[in-house]
Formats: sequence, C-alpha cells, structure tokens
Amino acid sequence: MTETPGSMGLIVVGAAGRMGQSLIRTIAEIDGVHLAGAVERPGSEALGRDAGELAGLGPDGILITDDALPVFAQAEGVLDFTAPAATLEFADLAAQARIVHVIGTTGMDASHEPRLHSASRHARIVKSGNMSLGVNLLSVLVRQAARALEASNWDIEVLEMHHRHKVDAPSGTALLLGEAAAGGRGIDLADHSVRVRDGHTGAREPGTIGFATLRGGSVVGEHSVILAGEGETIELSHKATDRSIFARGAVRAALWARHQKPGYYSMLDVLGLTDY
Amino acid sequence: MTETPGSMGLIVVGAAGRMGQSLIRTIAEIDGVHLAGAVERPGSEALGRDAGELAGLGPDGILITDDALPVFAQAEGVLDFTAPAATLEFADLAAQARIVHVIGTTGMDASHEPRLHSASRHARIVKSGNMSLGVNLLSVLVRQAARALEASNWDIEVLEMHHRHKVDAPSGTALLLGEAAAGGRGIDLADHSVRVRDGHTGAREPGTIGFATLRGGSVVGEHSVILAGEGETIELSHKATDRSIFARGAVRAALWARHQKPGYYSMLDVLGLTDY
Amino acid sequence: MTETPGSMGLIVVGAAGRMGQSLIRTIAEIDGVHLAGAVERPGSEALGRDAGELAGLGPDGILITDDALPVFAQAEGVLDFTAPAATLEFADLAAQARIVHVIGTTGMDASHEPRLHSASRHARIVKSGNMSLGVNLLSVLVRQAARALEASNWDIEVLEMHHRHKVDAPSGTALLLGEAAAGGRGIDLADHSVRVRDGHTGAREPGTIGFATLRGGSVVGEHSVILAGEGETIELSHKATDRSIFARGAVRAALWARHQKPGYYSMLDVLGLTDY
Amino acid sequence: MTETPGSMGLIVVGAAGRMGQSLIRTIAEIDGVHLAGAVERPGSEALGRDAGELAGLGPDGILITDDALPVFAQAEGVLDFTAPAATLEFADLAAQARIVHVIGTTGMDASHEPRLHSASRHARIVKSGNMSLGVNLLSVLVRQAARALEASNWDIEVLEMHHRHKVDAPSGTALLLGEAAAGGRGIDLADHSVRVRDGHTGAREPGTIGFATLRGGSVVGEHSVILAGEGETIELSHKATDRSIFARGAVRAALWARHQKPGYYSMLDVLGLTDY
Repeated sequence: MTETPGSMGLIVVGAAGRMGQSLIRTIAEIDGVHLAGAVERPGSEALGRDAGELAGLGPDGILITDDALPVFAQAEGVLDFTAPAATLEFADLAAQARIVHVIGTTGMDASHEPRLHSASRHARIVKSGNMSLGVNLLSVLVRQAARALEASNWDIEVLEMHHRHKVDAPSGTALLLGEAAAGGRGIDLADHSVRVRDGHTGAREPGTIGFATLRGGSVVGEHSVILAGEGETIELSHKATDRSIFARGAVRAALWARHQKPGYYSMLDVLGLTDY
Repeated sequence: MTETPGSMGLIVVGAAGRMGQSLIRTIAEIDGVHLAGAVERPGSEALGRDAGELAGLGPDGILITDDALPVFAQAEGVLDFTAPAATLEFADLAAQARIVHVIGTTGMDASHEPRLHSASRHARIVKSGNMSLGVNLLSVLVRQAARALEASNWDIEVLEMHHRHKVDAPSGTALLLGEAAAGGRGIDLADHSVRVRDGHTGAREPGTIGFATLRGGSVVGEHSVILAGEGETIELSHKATDRSIFARGAVRAALWARHQKPGYYSMLDVLGLTDY
Repeated sequence: MTETPGSMGLIVVGAAGRMGQSLIRTIAEIDGVHLAGAVERPGSEALGRDAGELAGLGPDGILITDDALPVFAQAEGVLDFTAPAATLEFADLAAQARIVHVIGTTGMDASHEPRLHSASRHARIVKSGNMSLGVNLLSVLVRQAARALEASNWDIEVLEMHHRHKVDAPSGTALLLGEAAAGGRGIDLADHSVRVRDGHTGAREPGTIGFATLRGGSVVGEHSVILAGEGETIELSHKATDRSIFARGAVRAALWARHQKPGYYSMLDVLGLTDY
Repeated sequence: MTETPGSMGLIVVGAAGRMGQSLIRTIAEIDGVHLAGAVERPGSEALGRDAGELAGLGPDGILITDDALPVFAQAEGVLDFTAPAATLEFADLAAQARIVHVIGTTGMDASHEPRLHSASRHARIVKSGNMSLGVNLLSVLVRQAARALEASNWDIEVLEMHHRHKVDAPSGTALLLGEAAAGGRGIDLADHSVRVRDGHTGAREPGTIGFATLRGGSVVGEHSVILAGEGETIELSHKATDRSIFARGAVRAALWARHQKPGYYSMLDVLGLTDY
C-alpha cells in the first residue's frame, strides 16, 4: 500500500469511474505496488480531488489529473479499463514512457490492433477481455478438453448466469469460452453455435456448440462449459462472487509484465499457460 | 413378482413398446403386484408372444393380445403410456371393469378431459405428465417457493438438460415446473414466460419466468428451478438417471388408487401432497 | 432512510460491531424504517460517536449510547445480533417498552427460553438461527420433502461450503437443515446423523442423514440438501453471496411483527410458512 | 460386432462377472472389434456356456473356457478387470502372445509393478485405475489448474458422491484426482490431505487438499474438484451415469494400443494427453 523500496508505481486511468475506484482500492491492498497517478478525462468533475479519498480509502496525496504525460513519465505501469479511443492514446503514452500497459477495456476490435502492436514495440502491453485468473485458466482447460474429446461423441454446451440488470446475452465471457472450445476442435464458432432453442428443434446436430442464458438476482457471473458424452459428462465452471477479481487480475498482470521485454501479451502469458 | 395372496394384478397396454417393456420389468421387481395381462394394438408383430420373454425376463405365461376386454375383466389395474386415442378407449374399458387406470400418456389436451372425467365415475384414474415421484414433489415445492417469495425481488428461471436426441424445447416437465411457479404467484405462465434470450435483450423484466435449455450426451433428464434474489439464490433440482422411475411411479400410483373411491386423481394425490 | 410518516423507528444494539453496522446500512436502504437509536455496551470506544458516520453513511444525528432504557422508550423495534446475556436483558427492556425484538443472536440454548417466553407476553419477539429468507424457506421445503419421501428408499445428505476462515463444521445452518429433514421424518437428528466418512465405512445405513463439509476461498455460505433415491435425485440448495441478506431479513421481521400481538415468533411466521 | 476384415479380436477374462459381461456387450456394440475369447477361472459354473448368451446378447459361438493359452494365441488383445494375482498371470500370457493387455483391475500396488514392467517388454499394456475417458481427462485438467493457481490463495477441495452400497470413502477416483492436484502443486498428497471435518476444526490450513463424501441412492459416480480463491471459484466435475463407460474406455485403449510398440502405457497415453 505504501511506497516501499522496489514497489511498482501504477497509474489508474478512468480513476473516478466504478472500475477505476475498484482498481485504486485493490492497489492499496496488494503488497509490492502503490498508486503513482490517477487520470481522468478533461472536464471530469473529479479533477483535482484526492484519488484515495474518492475511493473511500482516506487521502493518499494523489490528485486526479487530466494531464497524463508527466504522470506516465514517473510510473512503471498503467491500468486501463476505459474506452477504445482513450486506450489507444494511453498505449502511445505508455510506449513513449516504455512502461507496462494493462488493458481491460471492452469493445475493442480488429481495427485497433495495428496501433496496439505498434505501441508494443516499446510498451509491455497485456490485454484481455476478462482479467480474472479463473476465467482465463478455464478457457485453457476448455480448449484442451474440446481438443481431447471427439466432436462426434461429445456435445459442448455453454451456460451462463448473470444478474437481472445485464442487457445482452450470451455474455462476452460465454462467447470467449465458446471460442476456446471451437479453437480446441479447430472449427469456427460462428458456423457451429446454437444460440436459441425453442419449440420443435429437432435432434441436436453433432459438432455444434450450444449456449444457454440465465438471468436473475444479483449474480456477479457464473459460467459452465458442459461436455456431454454417452454415459458421462464433464463440467468446467467458474463463479465470480466479487468484482474485485478483475482488478486483482490487472495488478497481477502489471507485476508480471514489469519483468518482460516490450511486447504484446495476454492473460494466458501472465498465467504461464501458453504452452498448453 | 409372482402372484401372492393379495397381490394386485396389473395390465400393461402398449406392452411391446419401450415403455411397455420397462413397465413389465418394473412390475416383476416390485412386491405386491404381478403382470395380469399384456395388450398391443391389432396388427402388432408382438401379438401372441410371451410378454415376460419379450421384456428380457424369461417366459411368464402372459401372452400379448389385442383383445383387451377379457383381460381388463380379470385385473385390478392398467398401466397406460400409449397415445391419446387409445387411452380414451382404455379409460372406457377401465370404467366398465371398475378398475384402476394409470395414465402417463403424453400429448393429451383439454379436449380429452370430458371423456376421462366421465370414465372416472367408475374407474379410479391417476393421470400425470410426469410419473416420477421426484418431479411431482419438486413441482409442489416450486409452487410454495414461488408463493413465498415476492416477484418484485425474486427472479425465477427454469433450466433443463436432456440427451441429444430430444427434439423439442423446453421439455414438458420444464413447462410443468414453470406452471407450478406461475401458479404459486397467481399469474398465467404464457403471459410471463421468456423462452429465448439472444443479443440485446435489455434488463430482465420483473415477474417473468425464464427458460433455458441444454442438450447433450445421454442425459435422461435434469431440471432446476432457480429463484434468484439480492444476495441469495435458491435452487430446486431434480435429476433422473434411469427411465425406470417413471414405471415405478406408475406402479405406486396403481397401488395407491386400488384403495380409493372411483375418481380422477393426480400424482400429487398419490404422494399426499395436495394440501400444500 | 429518512423518517417519513408511519416509518418504523428501529434501534440497533451492538451498533459498533460488524453486524450492527450492516444493520444500520440496511435500515438506511429500506423504505418504511429509520434508525431510532444505537446502543453499545458500557465501555465501548464507540460511545458518543455518530452511528451513521461509523457505518460509512455520513452523519445521521443518532449518537451511540450505553443507556438503552430511554432509547427503547422512543422506538418501535430493536434488532439484536449480540450475545445471549445481553439479549436476555434487551428482551426485558423490549417487554417493558412493549416493542418488537428481533433476535439473531447465536449461541442461545434451552436455558434461555423461559425468560424469552416471559418477555414475549408484552414484547413481540422474532427469533431465528438464520435470518435469511431463503434459508428459512429452504428449511420448510426440506421438511416437506423428507416427509413425502420414504426413508427406506431415499437417502438424505446435507452439504455445505463456507470460506476458509470458518472454524467449525458442519455449519449451524447445515444442522438446522438436518433438523428440518429429521423433523419431516419424525426422527431425532442426533440419533441418525452421520458426520464423518473415512476409510472402510460399510454400506450406507438406511434412514441416516449424512453431512459433508467443504471449506475454501471467500464463499459466504452454500447449503444443499440432497435426497437420493433409485434412479432419481432431488437437490434443494441455497447460496448466500452477500451478508446483508441477514440484515434485510431482520428488518423484514420487524416490519411484520409491528402488526402482530405480543408473542414469540420465528422467521417461519414472518414468511407465512407455518401451515406447511 | 461381427468379425469384419481388420477387426481386432479381443478376449474378455472374468467373462462371467458383472464387468466381464459389460465388456462383452460393449465389444458387440463397437465397430472394429469382435469377441475372440472368453475366460473364467477353473471351477467357475460358467465354463462351457456361450459367452454372448450369458451376457444377454444371444449366442455368439464363443464358449467360456479356463484354458487361456490357446485363446491368447489367437487374439490381438485382452480386457482384464479381474484381481491382481490373475492379472499378473494374464500379463505373462499376453507377453508370450505379444498382444495388447488392458488392465482395469483394482487393488494393484507397487509390489506388482516389476512383473508388469517385465511383461511390457513384449506385451502392450495399458493400465489405469479408472478407464473412463472423462475422469482421465479431468485428472489432467486438475493437475494443470493446481499448478497454475498459487496454493496460498486457492484452496482445493475434492467432493464425490456414490450410491448407498459403496463401502469405502473417499472413492479411489477422488484420491486419484487429489493426487493429480497434489502433483500439480509438487506436494505429497498424504502430507496435505484433510479427510475429516467435524466440530471445532479451526480455520482451513493453507495448502491442504480437503475431501468430502456423499452417499445415497443409485448414483454411479460424481466427482468435483473445487478450487476456491478470493471472490472466485473454479469447479471441475465429472458425472458417470452408466457403468458401460469403463468398458468403452477399455475397448478404446485396446484399439489404440494395437498400433503401438510393446510398452507400459496409461489412459493418458491413449488420450494423447501426456504432454500437458
């Protein structure tokens, strides 16, 4: 929490948002890192406020600023769950400062990749659609299971449940797990997914990957991949009960990337799971 | 298995079918009942064959016949998982013989009710869409849970999984459980069910009952009703791992009805759960 | 949160403890109730502090006091998750003030009952070992299921999982559910429970109720009662993901008891589930 | 089922036992293999009977014999779920005949290994404590998960449920999964397992692997490995619903081993999962 010798200084961008505040609290809880800067967009009401106080921790002397450049120059990493356009700018700044850039921003697509790759010649970028360790590990296990079990005998289903406020289905993480399964089988998910079943569906088509969605209560996020064969079933599941796991995953990624060469990494690299 | 004093003689109609054979095997396993007749439709290749042998039990001297009348005259009950038209005729015969008629036939609707009610003045009819004790008990528990928990705070979801050969969704039993939940809330299921979620769905509408379907492998039948509130979730589930539970439920219904007055009963009566 | 006409004034005793603060926050969230007093034991460092501020809500003008009597005289109910000796004294005060006393205190036993019964001639007492609506409903469903399913054919198992810091096993709630199952069967739990299985156990003895315990991570509390028969299994489960459900249950109990005659009630009365 | 060109001839030893008959039925269902011999111990009442008929398939002309040598000389593989002493003899015979020997025998220990290794210079031996594909794959996934997740933050629990007739706890497969978890962490299971929790246990000790056992009904076998961290949980599960999966695993092993060099293999080799 406090700055000790060797502690890694981290910037939080989007510091006044819900995820930004969660990141600030998480940094305060983990040994070996400290908050080195807090950035918000120009015009934010939070500019000038104490970042620790805003996050409910008590004042820590880090004032929220919209002038990112000097902050980046004095830190070792930046945690970024903002929006695609801002993330691209922060990637450039991280490259100039030659620091770590952990990207949990959602909504990024293929059009953003060239600029991130370019930045990664100088920055150490870690990017993932889901920063939790558990989901990333699960995706690796799903890929292997799907590869090991013949599609003609084993049916794959992806089930997810989220709280009543979620507005889309299936969840991005359910699709990520479906992609892992499709990858393990060497097929394209889009051509093999069954996203709706209602009324007369006919028998299940071999080789497809089915999705089912539950909504209710305050469930943070539950995902299961079911591999169902004749007389036996494997189920690989993840339950998130606290949103702080995404913040902790980001800090872990930063600590890992600190010791890597500049490059473009994923959470699988962080977990040491890329050989599977 | 063998006919002992006081043993209840049961007829199996549709005796050569998969369910009929399962009924014959189950009758042989349960004390206090014995096979008293085996009926198939005119033209069936099984006519004249030994019913026990056909079911893999060894010969038991009961030959399969298409002449139901004399068979009904000498038995105390009939187990019937055939088709609606045949079931109506068997109900008339059961009324004439004043015996028990256990009906597990699927596909029956409101148009068949008057004739069954009429038959039930002389027959003791037990009819249910699912003869397993477990599912019937579950439906009672679901009804109570739905009644006890306010719809504004608790979301209800029905999840089911069946084998890859099932051709419709959601299962009849999932709908039965949805009806139980709707009944507990005093609402109409059709007006409140959400049977598909895909893409941008918007937030969950309060008071609805959602359905989700999984298909795969050789799963006999799994149903869960999830009641999800703020910070807590109740889940009420049933797993069938052996189709013989439906046959055993039918025999239990017959043994129960033997001691009742003529009338039209459900599995809830058999289980003694109608007061809940 | 604020005092509106007809709002029920509630006292929190043990106001500086973790559960007390949770109660204060919950009162602030629920319409129709407001904080009317905050009591701590003599000598507490929190005496004189603002109760709302201590709970992280901002000041609300209610100062924490050790002088309970005048506070009780001006409120309609008291929420009490303290310790047995204190609870007995608060029961006497609640009786004098003729108000509602909601008791979630753990560790109470048969020796405390006479004094509570005595107090309940003037107070409206609601007492439960678990204030969550979900667990109380589950206990009712378990009792019914155990009553409906013959012990010779159906085995009952109680499974629970809690976080790594929990120091005893099985949980009090697991035992409460085991009692519900035993009650449904009309047997005594102590004589029929199997709490340990290891090594050569022999076959399961019919009619017993087994317990199994999992510990790990930050799990708030998960309980399942499994009723396993031949070819089918019923599972009745509850998951708590947020400790505030216990506080919300207490407020709901207070609001319900406000309109009752003096007496000694349980959460089953509050839920309207005593007829089952 | 019938002997087609290239079909692999398999011997079943212990042909009159429950597992032997299941193997015979499974061989009849799978393309590319046929029953080439059926062996029982001297004195068995089944000697001289038709193996197909005994297994409920109708006669297939293979008579059960206690003279294994000539049978081994004319087959390509033997499926063996007998007992350790018999298995060692069959291994010698398989070595002489230079055929495949699939060993699912339980109760084998380190003292038997030298003779099996010796036999494997000429035979192709595949040996596993659980022949189901699903459990073997699960063990690989558990090993990886345990390796990837730090023991200080993630608690591992192994839960299993089996039918009421099972006489020991935890199951051999639960221990196999516990070994996989311990292997992933590089620790010894015996020194870190917690097999009983009852009464005042104290907080969970970091780095331990807990076991919990459920017994009831007719459950064939369910195993779950739970990895519980702060705010998230991974669960890796297997459910067997049909004992024939063990027979099918054995046939798959035989077909795989047919094309290997003499050696001593496991189901992980068969599944191609040894690189993980």
